[in-house]
Amino acid sequence: MVLVSAPGKVILFGEHAVVYGKPSLAGAIDKRTHVNLEARDDDIISIESDAAPQRLSFSLDDLVSVEGFPYVRKAIELAFERIGKKSGLDIKISSDFPPASGLGSSASVSIATILAVHEVLESEIPYGTLAKLGHKVEFEVQGAASPTDTAIATFGGILFIEPGKDEHKRIDVQLPLIVGCTGIERSTKVLVENVRVLRENSPEIVDSTIESIEKITRMAKEKIEKGEDIGDLMNMNHGLLMALGVSNFKLDILVYAARDAGARGAKLTGAGGGGCIIAYAPDKGAQVKGAIENCGCSAFESAITSVGVRVE
Amino acid sequence: MVLVSAPGKVILFGEHAVVYGKPSLAGAIDKRTHVNLEARDDDIISIESDAAPQRLSFSLDDLVSVEGFPYVRKAIELAFERIGKKSGLDIKISSDFPPASGLGSSASVSIATILAVHEVLESEIPYGTLAKLGHKVEFEVQGAASPTDTAIATFGGILFIEPGKDEHKRIDVQLPLIVGCTGIERSTKVLVENVRVLRENSPEIVDSTIESIEKITRMAKEKIEKGEDIGDLMNMNHGLLMALGVSNFKLDILVYAARDAGARGAKLTGAGGGGCIIAYAPDKGAQVKGAIENCGCSAFESAITSVGVRVE
Repeated sequence: MVLVSAPGKVILFGEHAVVYGKPSLAGAIDKRTHVNLEARDDDIISIESDAAPQRLSFSLDDLVSVEGFPYVRKAIELAFERIGKKSGLDIKISSDFPPASGLGSSASVSIATILAVHEVLESEIPYGTLAKLGHKVEFEVQGAASPTDTAIATFGGILFIEPGKDEHKRIDVQLPLIVGCTGIERSTKVLVENVRVLRENSPEIVDSTIESIEKITRMAKEKIEKGEDIGDLMNMNHGLLMALGVSNFKLDILVYAARDAGARGAKLTGAGGGGCIIAYAPDKGAQVKGAIENCGCSAFESAITSVGVRVE
Repeated sequence: MVLVSAPGKVILFGEHAVVYGKPSLAGAIDKRTHVNLEARDDDIISIESDAAPQRLSFSLDDLVSVEGFPYVRKAIELAFERIGKKSGLDIKISSDFPPASGLGSSASVSIATILAVHEVLESEIPYGTLAKLGHKVEFEVQGAASPTDTAIATFGGILFIEPGKDEHKRIDVQLPLIVGCTGIERSTKVLVENVRVLRENSPEIVDSTIESIEKITRMAKEKIEKGEDIGDLMNMNHGLLMALGVSNFKLDILVYAARDAGARGAKLTGAGGGGCIIAYAPDKGAQVKGAIENCGCSAFESAITSVGVRVE
C-alpha cells in the first residue's frame, strides 16, 4: 500500500493574462489531495473518494470506457502505458480542499495518482516527466489545459510561469494567505471565452488591461523574492480582473470583507465567476478568516508550501 | 425677480485619468439647481437653501468675511466685480439632486447665481465668460478645480474635455441614465491624493491603468456619437477605477444591483469613495432604479440634457 499526496494551488497573479502569453505567478498551498493506492490480485480497479457519492469499480479492460473519475482513470492509463505493466487497484482519495473551486484539485489528484501507480508497480519517474504526464492527463480530459496546476502539484513552492518557456523560475518562500471560497462552481472555459469576446469587441482596451496585469505580475515576483508587501498589487490585480468582467458580486463581497478585516490585499484567484479569493494578511489571518465565514462562506488559512508531491 | 437654473453633471468616463492630463467625458443631467434672486432696496444679502438648516443674512460689506454658502457668496462677489455694481439681494436656492455627491451641485449653483446676478442688475454675460467666471468661483473656494463641472453647468450636453484645450467638443445626444447615490459624502481631494500615492508606489501599473481609461474614454466618445451601446465600456471603466482603489463596497453593491436588474453597464461616477453610480439601461430604467432603491439608496432616472444654464 502507498499513500501519496500533492498540494493544491492558487494563482497569485496573472490569471487570464496567461491565456494571452503573459506570465503568471502560482503557488502550492498547504492543503493537499491524498491518494491511497493498493495493488489487487484480480483485475478490478476500485476508486472511491470523499467527494463522490459512491465507489466506482470496473475491470482493467474497461479503464478507458467507463464513466466517472476521468482524471484518476486517465492518470492510471498513462501511468500503465509508461510503466508497461498493469494491475488491479484499490484507490481511496481524500482532499483537504473543495473540488471545482479553482484550487487545482484535478491536477493534484492526477499527479498523486501517477506517482502512486509508479510506486505500487515499483517503477521510477523523474519529477519533470511526472509534471508533463500530469499535464497530459488534464489536456486529454479537458481538451485544453495550462501546465501550471500540474507543475505546482509536482514541485510545490511558487512558480513564475512564462508561457512558451520550459523551465519556470521557482521561488521558495513562506507566504501566509487566507483562502475564501464562494461555493459557486464555475467553468473556466466559459470565463476564458467571455474575455475573448470582450477582447474581440474592444481589443485595445482589453490588451492594455492585460498589459497592466503583466506589469503587476512581474513586480509581484520581485516583491515576493524580496519579502515585500504585495497587498496593493493584489488589490490592483483584482480591479483589473473586474475590468475584464470575471469577478462577480459574491467574490467582491469576500474581497471587501477581507480588506475590512485587515487584509493588506485581496483578489479573486483563478478563472473568477465563482471559486475562491485569496487574501494577504500576515498578522490578521484569524480575523480575515472569521470575516469571510461571517459572509456564509468557507475559509482557511493557508501558507504557500514548498512541499510538492510526495510519498507519505 | 429672476429665476435661473443650471444642470448638474455626471462624469461618464475618464474620472481620475483627467488629473493626469487624459480626456474625460461629462454630461449635463436633467436635474437642476434653481436660483431665485431678487434685488432688495437695502444693503442686506439674504441666502436660503433647501439643503441648509437656516437662512444666512448679512450686510453687503460682509460679503467676503461671513461664513456659510461659500460658492454663492463668491459667485455674487465676482459678478458684482465684473458688473461694477452692487445690490442687496434675496436669494432662494433649491436643487433636484443631493449636494456633495459628485453631481456638480457647487458648479451649478455658482453658474446659476452669476447669471442671476447679471440678470437682476441688467448686465449681459456671454456663456464663455460665464463658464470661466464659474470656474474661478470653484477655484477660489476650493484652492483647485477642474473646469468641467462649470462648463457642463453652462453649456449642457456632453463635453469631451481634453485638458489644456480651450474648446471642448460638445456632443448633443439623448442618453438615458440611472443615477444611484450611496449617500456617503467623500472628499475628492483625499481620493485624488490616494491615487497619487498609489502611483508613487507603482508608477508603471497606475500609468498603464490610466492609459486604459484613456482608451475607454476615446472609444466611448465615438460610440456615443454613433448612438452605440456603451455598457461594456462603463463596466470596464469601473473595474479600472477599482484597480485605482477609488471604488468601495457600497458603490459596488449598487453597480451589481444595477447590472443584475438589466443595466447594460454601470460604474461609479466622479471621485469615488462614496457619491453616486451611473447605470446605462435604455429599456430597463425603472427596474434598475427599483433595484438601487432596494439597496436602501436613492436613485433617479436622468437623461443627459442639452439644456445648460437658463433664465426660466
